[in-house]
Amino acid sequence: MELVPGNSLITATPEDGRALAVLMARHTVRAIQPDVDVLRDGRPDYAENVDGLTSAAQVVAIEFATIAAANNYWR
Amino acid sequence: MELVPGNSLITATPEDGRALAVLMARHTVRAIQPDVDVLRDGRPDYAENVDGLTSAAQVVAIEFATIAAANNYWR
Amino acid sequence: MELVPGNSLITATPEDGRALAVLMARHTVRAIQPDVDVLRDGRPDYAENVDGLTSAAQVVAIEFATIAAANNYWR
Amino acid sequence: MELVPGNSLITATPEDGRALAVLMARHTVRAIQPDVDVLRDGRPDYAENVDGLTSAAQVVAIEFATIAAANNYWR
Amino acid sequence: MELVPGNSLITATPEDGRALAVLMARHTVRAIQPDVDVLRDGRPDYAENVDGLTSAAQVVAIEFATIAAANNYWR
Amino acid sequence: MELVPGNSLITATPEDGRALAVLMARHTVRAIQPDVDVLRDGRPDYAENVDGLTSAAQVVAIEFATIAAANNYWR
Repeated sequence: MELVPGNSLITATPEDGRALAVLMARHTVRAIQPDVDVLRDGRPDYAENVDGLTSAAQVVAIEFATIAAANNYWR
Repeated sequence: MELVPGNSLITATPEDGRALAVLMARHTVRAIQPDVDVLRDGRPDYAENVDGLTSAAQVVAIEFATIAAANNYWR
Repeated sequence: MELVPGNSLITATPEDGRALAVLMARHTVRAIQPDVDVLRDGRPDYAENVDGLTSAAQVVAIEFATIAAANNYWR
Repeated sequence: MELVPGNSLITATPEDGRALAVLMARHTVRAIQPDVDVLRDGRPDYAENVDGLTSAAQVVAIEFATIAAANNYWR
Repeated sequence: MELVPGNSLITATPEDGRALAVLMARHTVRAIQPDVDVLRDGRPDYAENVDGLTSAAQVVAIEFATIAAANNYWR
Repeated sequence: MELVPGNSLITATPEDGRALAVLMARHTVRAIQPDVDVLRDGRPDYAENVDGLTSAAQVVAIEFATIAAANNYWR
């Protein structure tokens, strides 16, 4: 599985950039834990847990900061 | 639901930029956990929990850093 | 309540910039949890808890990084 | 108590900049919790707790990043 | 063990840059805890724990931000 | 104990820069908790605990980001 889907940080729009940030975060988790069953079993622990959701949102925010800078903030 | 409401990071003022940061953080949580009932049930766990509130404020701070840079700090 | 008091990141001095960072962090918590009683009840949980204080200080540090960059570090 | 001791981010050396980062983090905690007794009682909870020490070190790292940029990395 | 494999932050592609970020995070953990048995015993605690996975993904995101800037975002 | 060993962020290579990041993180912990016995007793709590290791790796990642920028990424 690619760590950086499309092997580029350049996207047409902020929305695409944000989607890439979410994907990159997910693909990194998959690279660390390739066992999909483990991830599926663990999903309730973060998707139904506010601390888990907030931590995940923080990772996306950090990835997006990098992608936004890469795209010169789509100015 | 849009990940980046309005599909742009450019806002007229810092206040608008901050509001966008809050929205982007919320929309990311919704993208990770689309089930609104789960989110509603979980709200007390973070909105009535100081650690939860502080973690959420941290996500907003990171998102705002990106949006502020995108707007050249509204200088 | 304003998310960005004064609707500007530009301040005369670093001290003012730091005070703005503290205010912005607090106003974000208020925007997430408007119920002042909930916040007052929760204060001991973070103001008398070192982890809570450290996490709050981290949010201020991130906000200040943005404000300092906005003011070109008051060079 | 000043939030930014000396009301400037500019220091002569990285060592002075690092000391300022530690001070700024501490002064922020004092601004959030002015009661010195509470802070003194809480000290073992973070100074004798590795998670507490690591979180405190993280705040200093973020503050230092801002101060280092302010001083153009003392190049 | 090298802290920065290849002793360079410059990579041909974002994918290579991301792989370097993962490696740098892992090599830092190894530098802090050289005992491979300890690390192997501890793996389930983070690879089968969503908080652990999210925290690890956050470290990779921060490392990647540095590598991406080093490579001028592979523009 | 120096907070910034060598009182400079400039290093010859990324590897040296990374080593400096690890040292700066450690020296900050020592500045916060000078009692070496306390630190030695606490080591298992983070060096044999994945959350502790990940948090420590995160501090190094933040310090390294500053050092890498200081060295213009050793381009």
